[in-house]
Amino acid sequence: MFSKVLVANRGEIAVRIIRSLHELGIKSVAVYSEADRESLHVQLADEAVCVGGARPQESYLNMKNILSAAIGTGAQAIHPGFGFLSENSKFAEMCQACGITFIGPDAKIIDLMGNKEHARQQMKLLGVPVIPGSDDYIQDVNEAKRVAAKIGYPVLIKAAAGGGGKGIRRINNEAAMTDSFNEAQSEAKLAFGDDHMYIEKIMENVKHIEVQVFRDQAGHAVYFPERDCSLQINKQKVLEESPCQLVTEEERKQLGQIALRAINGIDYLNTGTIEFLMDQDHHFYFMEMNTRIQVEHTVTEMVTGIDLVKAQLKVAAGENLPFTQSDIQINGAAIECRINAEDPNNNFMPSIGNIKYLYLPVGNLGMRIDTDLYQGSRVTPFYDSMLAKVIALGHDRVEAIEKIKRLLNEMVIEGIKTNQEIQLAILQDPTFIKGNFTTSYLEKVFLNRWKENHSRNELIRS
Amino acid sequence: MFSKVLVANRGEIAVRIIRSLHELGIKSVAVYSEADRESLHVQLADEAVCVGGARPQESYLNMKNILSAAIGTGAQAIHPGFGFLSENSKFAEMCQACGITFIGPDAKIIDLMGNKEHARQQMKLLGVPVIPGSDDYIQDVNEAKRVAAKIGYPVLIKAAAGGGGKGIRRINNEAAMTDSFNEAQSEAKLAFGDDHMYIEKIMENVKHIEVQVFRDQAGHAVYFPERDCSLQINKQKVLEESPCQLVTEEERKQLGQIALRAINGIDYLNTGTIEFLMDQDHHFYFMEMNTRIQVEHTVTEMVTGIDLVKAQLKVAAGENLPFTQSDIQINGAAIECRINAEDPNNNFMPSIGNIKYLYLPVGNLGMRIDTDLYQGSRVTPFYDSMLAKVIALGHDRVEAIEKIKRLLNEMVIEGIKTNQEIQLAILQDPTFIKGNFTTSYLEKVFLNRWKENHSRNELIRS
Repeated sequence: MFSKVLVANRGEIAVRIIRSLHELGIKSVAVYSEADRESLHVQLADEAVCVGGARPQESYLNMKNILSAAIGTGAQAIHPGFGFLSENSKFAEMCQACGITFIGPDAKIIDLMGNKEHARQQMKLLGVPVIPGSDDYIQDVNEAKRVAAKIGYPVLIKAAAGGGGKGIRRINNEAAMTDSFNEAQSEAKLAFGDDHMYIEKIMENVKHIEVQVFRDQAGHAVYFPERDCSLQINKQKVLEESPCQLVTEEERKQLGQIALRAINGIDYLNTGTIEFLMDQDHHFYFMEMNTRIQVEHTVTEMVTGIDLVKAQLKVAAGENLPFTQSDIQINGAAIECRINAEDPNNNFMPSIGNIKYLYLPVGNLGMRIDTDLYQGSRVTPFYDSMLAKVIALGHDRVEAIEKIKRLLNEMVIEGIKTNQEIQLAILQDPTFIKGNFTTSYLEKVFLNRWKENHSRNELIRS
Repeated sequence: MFSKVLVANRGEIAVRIIRSLHELGIKSVAVYSEADRESLHVQLADEAVCVGGARPQESYLNMKNILSAAIGTGAQAIHPGFGFLSENSKFAEMCQACGITFIGPDAKIIDLMGNKEHARQQMKLLGVPVIPGSDDYIQDVNEAKRVAAKIGYPVLIKAAAGGGGKGIRRINNEAAMTDSFNEAQSEAKLAFGDDHMYIEKIMENVKHIEVQVFRDQAGHAVYFPERDCSLQINKQKVLEESPCQLVTEEERKQLGQIALRAINGIDYLNTGTIEFLMDQDHHFYFMEMNTRIQVEHTVTEMVTGIDLVKAQLKVAAGENLPFTQSDIQINGAAIECRINAEDPNNNFMPSIGNIKYLYLPVGNLGMRIDTDLYQGSRVTPFYDSMLAKVIALGHDRVEAIEKIKRLLNEMVIEGIKTNQEIQLAILQDPTFIKGNFTTSYLEKVFLNRWKENHSRNELIRS
């Protein structure tokens, strides 16, 4: 096992990783930006190295400085957390070149999964169901109509060379295809000098269901019970839970087998998450794979009792997975609410400031709050607005909901605005309680209703 | 189920009970003394009633005022917590007379178990092994010698009418018996006008092993995995764990059967704990029964995943136990460190003051800190010095120890002195790690060594 590991991240995930390192008796090295001198991850680590200015490009994305810090402190491995350099294959390669273990899969796999079209093709080859679409370039409107008719409207047409929203259209029916295909293709030609187009089915009324997987160097592979991450605003997950209310035990096993086929087929190493869309008929479609630990790994930890970061460290050090498939059991239901520094009264704009008062309810069974907040800490404008993850485990989903409501009711964060109130409203929403919400529910239904109630309440108060 | 429950206690246990009430959707009523106006239990409860002055006799032991508060707020039941009125049979009777459910066993059972000699005789009748001793009064020194020779020295002779240390002697051998028996008997005669004496074996090199039990109105009875509470200073438990390192699975089952025999034999209701001494040969001897929830119930909750207070509420409301014996599994190992407001440099004298800064490490898997502390709260001289319980759950005892060490290393309590440092020293002590400590270890061996090291270190620092 490693004796010293550098954590190339900040915030709650850096704190979370450092804690698991300490429990394994491994020395921890923090890196930090000039804005993070007094951050909790710096205070908890055994050593800390400043790697640059406040802007991520200068510090947490500064590969050379981070590698220098690792070499200078004698760290044998780097845990990249999520975001920043966690899915940067170049960084993974640089680590290897320096003789430092990058805790994650091989650079080639990061690249493969980072390219969404390559990942889709690879998964299709392995027999993993993918979102229906054209398997090759579409040349003209007639071919587009033929493919769209086959996979069913609505579809998305997009430029193969695309990016920045150019050459991309949502098409609801054949008439619209006639109107829009040539237009989008011309736009693509103009923007990229390339008029190759793709078609992909637009999946509506779907759930975002994801499966965390793990595989060691010896080829032992396991999957974890699925997470339902359908509650999103602006493509950002807001509240996650495991297991999904609607997935049956049989479907869970089938999905697990698909996930294992995927990771065995690409000789995957360490942990990752395969994201699927689930339609109303409970068909699953591969969306993408995250080749790193995710924010919401905590609900899986709570519901299974397994520390995934400790397992990452062991597998990265060449050890076998410390558990088998039969060790992975669902012990109730876990829910996570992300607490973001944002102002619900101002279109969820980021909120910054000093934490003037903090009360985190830490007692009783089945709870956990992962955060780098402390009384007196500063929330700066430079990084992600997610500050804390409040997680509850209940014997069943009803108990988990009651518990997390209690936690949110007790928690006090003063000095910044947060989404605490909206999380409490979600937990009391009948559709949430029923469990049959889809990826569009929060943004298209819940939020509008909430804003109306909210402004009415504000009006009454004033 | 009750819709409103009064919590007749303060501090962390009141907070802990209120939290379970809220998760069950039950309204909570706090009572508080004038010294506790700003206490956390008052802030968290739905309603709060001041029941008297700071001194316990005026408030938390003021039965009339507490019952008035219950009647006035419409509470249907009273949870007494531990300490204060929790083992007061008169209070239990008064509750019944007022039509309020006392959450605990019947007053008669509280009385039976409150009288240590009656409890011993009752347990003996039920076939529960008890600490060897005279079963009847000893009249003279020859009879004393005969009994002592049978049960083995050392023994304790004590006045049947005893109390306050009068008429009590430790006797190491027969010669000492000749010298001391008449003296003690005369002392008893003088003090109580009664010269009846008892003899009890002094158990040395023993562990304090206790078994939590639960029984509902329908007669369903279960036992929980044992707790090892051998680490004590001045008869106060300092660190508790479950399961006990040295108890085998077979012994656990045997002990469980003994515990079930005891509670079925007395028609016990709700939860309680049977305390045993375990000698070097793993023989168990009944010591006493606590007819209430205990401080250390939390390690049992962590290792089994069962909320015991929620179960108390359900059983008190007449429901069946919400779990069966087979639901009670040992999921790893749990350890609890009691954090007391006391000064290790001043003979553990209570420490009082305002909490100037508080950092409680609340993240990661398998941890829990039950406390009523918050930044700005006051520690007064009126009540028990126990302020917080830091609890860790690991897959095994080694992981639990590493986790709780990390928690204690991260935790910051400023404004008062605590025993945090000594708890960290215990966790690193080879005898603790080995697990074969007895009830005298902390006071007779560890503490002397610690004081020596500590004063040497203080000397070096100065």
